[in-house]
Amino acid sequence: MKRPIKPITALSGVYASGMAAGIKSNGKKDLAFLFVPDAYGSAGVFTQSAFAAPPVELSRQALRRGTIKAVVVNAGNANAGTGKKGLRDAQETATITAKLLGLSPSQVAVASTGVIGKPLPMERLRSSLPKLLANPKATDGGAAAQAILTTDLTRKEVYCTGKVAGERITVAGFAKGSGMIAPNMATMLGFLVTDAKVDSATLKKLLKQAADASFNMTSVDTDTSTNDALIVLSTGKKGPRITSAKHQQEFLALLSEACCVLARSIAADGEGATKLIEVNVHGARNLREARVIAKNIVSSPLVKTAIHGADPNWGRVLAAAGKDPTARVDPNKVDVTFAGAPVMRRGVIVTHNRQAIHKLMSGKEVHIHLHLHLGKASATSWGCDLTHGYVDINVSYS
Amino acid sequence: MKRPIKPITALSGVYASGMAAGIKSNGKKDLAFLFVPDAYGSAGVFTQSAFAAPPVELSRQALRRGTIKAVVVNAGNANAGTGKKGLRDAQETATITAKLLGLSPSQVAVASTGVIGKPLPMERLRSSLPKLLANPKATDGGAAAQAILTTDLTRKEVYCTGKVAGERITVAGFAKGSGMIAPNMATMLGFLVTDAKVDSATLKKLLKQAADASFNMTSVDTDTSTNDALIVLSTGKKGPRITSAKHQQEFLALLSEACCVLARSIAADGEGATKLIEVNVHGARNLREARVIAKNIVSSPLVKTAIHGADPNWGRVLAAAGKDPTARVDPNKVDVTFAGAPVMRRGVIVTHNRQAIHKLMSGKEVHIHLHLHLGKASATSWGCDLTHGYVDINVSYS
Repeated sequence: MKRPIKPITALSGVYASGMAAGIKSNGKKDLAFLFVPDAYGSAGVFTQSAFAAPPVELSRQALRRGTIKAVVVNAGNANAGTGKKGLRDAQETATITAKLLGLSPSQVAVASTGVIGKPLPMERLRSSLPKLLANPKATDGGAAAQAILTTDLTRKEVYCTGKVAGERITVAGFAKGSGMIAPNMATMLGFLVTDAKVDSATLKKLLKQAADASFNMTSVDTDTSTNDALIVLSTGKKGPRITSAKHQQEFLALLSEACCVLARSIAADGEGATKLIEVNVHGARNLREARVIAKNIVSSPLVKTAIHGADPNWGRVLAAAGKDPTARVDPNKVDVTFAGAPVMRRGVIVTHNRQAIHKLMSGKEVHIHLHLHLGKASATSWGCDLTHGYVDINVSYS
Repeated sequence: MKRPIKPITALSGVYASGMAAGIKSNGKKDLAFLFVPDAYGSAGVFTQSAFAAPPVELSRQALRRGTIKAVVVNAGNANAGTGKKGLRDAQETATITAKLLGLSPSQVAVASTGVIGKPLPMERLRSSLPKLLANPKATDGGAAAQAILTTDLTRKEVYCTGKVAGERITVAGFAKGSGMIAPNMATMLGFLVTDAKVDSATLKKLLKQAADASFNMTSVDTDTSTNDALIVLSTGKKGPRITSAKHQQEFLALLSEACCVLARSIAADGEGATKLIEVNVHGARNLREARVIAKNIVSSPLVKTAIHGADPNWGRVLAAAGKDPTARVDPNKVDVTFAGAPVMRRGVIVTHNRQAIHKLMSGKEVHIHLHLHLGKASATSWGCDLTHGYVDINVSYS
């Protein structure tokens, strides 16, 4: 995971920055923009919640109308549970931004994260947006990545480069998320940019697939935010147009890698987390079942507490794996490995040194492998341990 | 909830007792039997887990073959993850019991709860069963209810009487469960007896419905045990045979009431719990959606931590309610009430005194009401708060 990460603005034609606009009460950065003046394509995936927040509504509409060129994000206030006023506030934010950047309002998406149920402090946005956008060609991607955080302890950035259609293509981005939702300090947000020439329709299809394999396989607490949003823009500055199935697959691999890096950082920074948990399920009958099983294991409070105690508790892992009757598991065929150490093979306990495995599991990252020996499908999920810290963060009477 | 509870053995023709057989390491009661020599009907519902334990397998088979007349239950060892030896041990337990009670082995069900992955200490069962069953007409239902507990802090019994087919009919029972599963100390078990004349086929149908409205609406931690079992026997000693739809409905109401009482006591005694949470959802389009929404609210770690802090956090409740896109919620129509105090009406925040509501929520039981105003269906779910205690119980490296 350790690698020097370039900011999103290292990509040609991609501009971003962040500032403190006084929306957070602690004076930290809380307002960011991302601007791709010559955007070639764009797409987004959003929360499935019935209580989708106004900024989600607005961004969905903008993306439906055409290619967007800018996103404005604020932290400290989710503009959720705010009804019609919330939608008007999101629209005004987009309109002000559009005017300052010389765009039409439908070319601007907005995203918000933070406290639920309180109106956006529009006077702060009205006075801050002109400052934020004073230099629309700012290249401080790091400040943007910083400004969107809430309970996050770490900045989450990615910069992945690989061969697509014979060209060196990059997908870069930044994200936030700590509780998958904590309506006082909410939401997963992710923003990605690529220099590949991928149109909006293709981006939309591939982004959905990449999100299903990454963010949608991540669980901090099984709760779903009202504000979750993942947006990607392409500059189209490199390589041929991505149309063939082969080139789409190559691009999808790169996009998925970038999404997985961000998803892992969100899981590792889960509220109260001391460990990242990665679950690999192999040998499932099909992809759906592999994903259901991997997700159920990483979501289980009993697995999460066991991992917190560095306990190779295969009983809890199997119970979670077998929980959904629509995903087939044969108890007599399963292999289970904790942190590389086998504890069960073909359903039979392998003699193992629990103290040694306990030690292997005492690091910052614990891998659980399951082989079902029923087919060829596999899936990976990410989560974190469940600790006193999680209870403390979320219990406080606000 | 406070009422003097008669033991299951107050019913004529129902015998039970419990003893310490040395299966638990702490010397407490850990072996129980329930015996209905003239059983008229019987039925059971069991875990859906792919890793169903051998005792579940055996009891399913016994109930498929005909009416059972006895159940033997041990705590301290779940006989789960024990493969073919586990099934042989369950069979031997049933065979010994059958011989001592003058039954055929297929008339005996078995249930186990406790540590996973260790073989049943059969020598203890072989020497203890003759003592346990020395008086097959023992009427110490309380000792049986005590002997099946594991991490439970309280005994869980029920004795409900009501009019069915014009007769005063009783459904009585006992249960255990604290974590819905904690594979070191596992499982929900429930045993019910009625004096109504209900045959096995009818019992099976109605038990499923009663379980769906009670135990299946209860969540301590969303995990599912490998050993969950709910078994009901009828003595047939009172009233006419329950056949008509009207009488079946009357009996179902009584059976459901008994199940709900036990389900509530399991939720209230959830691992680490300090509060029982009851969620009532009204005005859903249909029963399925009402149940999904009620269950998602009571299962949400963020709702559970908020309730622990006596925080009327409507944002988290709405987020959990809107989580499953297949269950319809209209954000502009919802009413939300905490502990009787309205905080939202038709999607708009009602001015409320948070400190006063905080006080109302500071007791041992918190009710959350949601009215969706979309239809006529309603559902209730039960759970408990999420606390440091839950983490402590489940984190320890065993």
